[in-house]
Amino acid sequence: MNGEHAGGADREQAVTDEVLASFGGTVDPRLREVMRSLVRHLHAFAREVRLSEREWEAAIEFLTRAGHITDERRQEFILLSDVLGLSMLTVAINEPAVPGATEATVFGPFFVDGAPEIPLGGDIARGAAGTPCHVSGQVRSTDGSPIAGARVDVWEADEDGFYDVQYSGDRSAGRGRLRSGADGEYRFWSVLPAPYPIPHDGPVGDLLAAAGRGPMRPAHLHFKVTAPGYRTLITHIFVAGDPYLGCDAVFGVKDGLVVEAEHHPAGTAPDGSRQAAAWTAMTFDLVLVPDGAG
Amino acid sequence: MNGEHAGGADREQAVTDEVLASFGGTVDPRLREVMRSLVRHLHAFAREVRLSEREWEAAIEFLTRAGHITDERRQEFILLSDVLGLSMLTVAINEPAVPGATEATVFGPFFVDGAPEIPLGGDIARGAAGTPCHVSGQVRSTDGSPIAGARVDVWEADEDGFYDVQYSGDRSAGRGRLRSGADGEYRFWSVLPAPYPIPHDGPVGDLLAAAGRGPMRPAHLHFKVTAPGYRTLITHIFVAGDPYLGCDAVFGVKDGLVVEAEHHPAGTAPDGSRQAAAWTAMTFDLVLVPDGAG
Repeated sequence: MNGEHAGGADREQAVTDEVLASFGGTVDPRLREVMRSLVRHLHAFAREVRLSEREWEAAIEFLTRAGHITDERRQEFILLSDVLGLSMLTVAINEPAVPGATEATVFGPFFVDGAPEIPLGGDIARGAAGTPCHVSGQVRSTDGSPIAGARVDVWEADEDGFYDVQYSGDRSAGRGRLRSGADGEYRFWSVLPAPYPIPHDGPVGDLLAAAGRGPMRPAHLHFKVTAPGYRTLITHIFVAGDPYLGCDAVFGVKDGLVVEAEHHPAGTAPDGSRQAAAWTAMTFDLVLVPDGAG
Repeated sequence: MNGEHAGGADREQAVTDEVLASFGGTVDPRLREVMRSLVRHLHAFAREVRLSEREWEAAIEFLTRAGHITDERRQEFILLSDVLGLSMLTVAINEPAVPGATEATVFGPFFVDGAPEIPLGGDIARGAAGTPCHVSGQVRSTDGSPIAGARVDVWEADEDGFYDVQYSGDRSAGRGRLRSGADGEYRFWSVLPAPYPIPHDGPVGDLLAAAGRGPMRPAHLHFKVTAPGYRTLITHIFVAGDPYLGCDAVFGVKDGLVVEAEHHPAGTAPDGSRQAAAWTAMTFDLVLVPDGAG
């Protein structure tokens, strides 16, 4: 209970102290630490900006709209975390840079568990529209040794900027999983990634518009790479020259993840396949960190 | 874009700096200030606790559950703000204590616009179960002058701890609005408030349980008082002796808002009404702050 006529700063601090004390009995020490830190920083924010009651109501309304637009195909809270940089900060905190290793970036909301298995060299596009793109490289350890049998999940938007799950129906396209070969090699066909806006018809889109920020992400292809004995790598490759590399709505770009796309005319590709139209190729090695290192 | 192999703290700060810069072009200076402060404090929190990816996922899941349980009758985000003390802190920031004025407290999620109008001395219970309670006092200014014609909204839970809107159907009970009389006097019949748990079958309830905190609020009656030329007062009166006064789940208790309930046997009440069973009475003056003062 607060004193009745204490000064403003004292009254505010008394609220914070009472809330911190209320979490003092939390049995799990980690939850206690997280909640008390959250309360201190949340209250410091409200006090610093002198949060008005109308602004508080706007925040409640914002979160409510975000909750109501979220379903199995749309995750507005991940988008919110992304555009506030919290997702990328969490990556930075948990995936310390290790010399020589491929850097991690945001996971995003479009991964689907149980994507189709494809053979090495197969096609993940499966109907996704776009210029064919051959993607290849080696999965290896930071010590240089190849990693055979690594599970490589890949997913991407089509040339119109939509992932399969953003269309109605249950079509799976532009995603797949494969295993690296005996020398760690991986390769697959897909389509050249295109830049696209994050879903911006909800509250996060309104926030971006109010902030004068664009909703665009530069063209990229997602990877999730797992292998026993190695730290899971979640990353993208970005296409060099993309106009949005400097203003990614979710802050995911890192220099080391930007890859040149080679352009080829119609003809026979190095894997012997006959390409009826112009096609592209990107090469990128996926370098994993052994468990316990870094 | 971050450097490829910068140290951990530098990489983290680079993310924060990039996000702060992205809000630099926000046209509305207040929105720019609020968002940049939010980003700084949110990132400081994540860095301080070294937020793990699993914890980040748990936060996304928590907010998603909160969004999906929220509807016209349930507002989980207000409950979350309440149990984190943000609601009460916002009150403290915006309603500075003025000597002699009635203190403000949390609004809560159960106010309904357009509650039934009742005459001075009428009954707002309208079917809400509980011991009859006569509530009266004077609406006046901090300068002592009575305020005639003030609009007094009141609402409360019944003896089972539920507001009307928590029942199915459209029944309005335990809420009403009246106007103060020529000398600022107000009076109405209702039921004696009872302590109750905030809705705790959702994610906020899970958080309270994990923190070893109870969901109970001490017995209280809500007031919203408006009069031209005065700051709107949003407050409660609490019932003296309630066992939960020291551990209100939403931190709303202030000493000056705790009122003794007088207990009376069945008989004729001072307003001439015949009370067939035991009844109670509470007296509380509502002292408003003139606009521009305090």
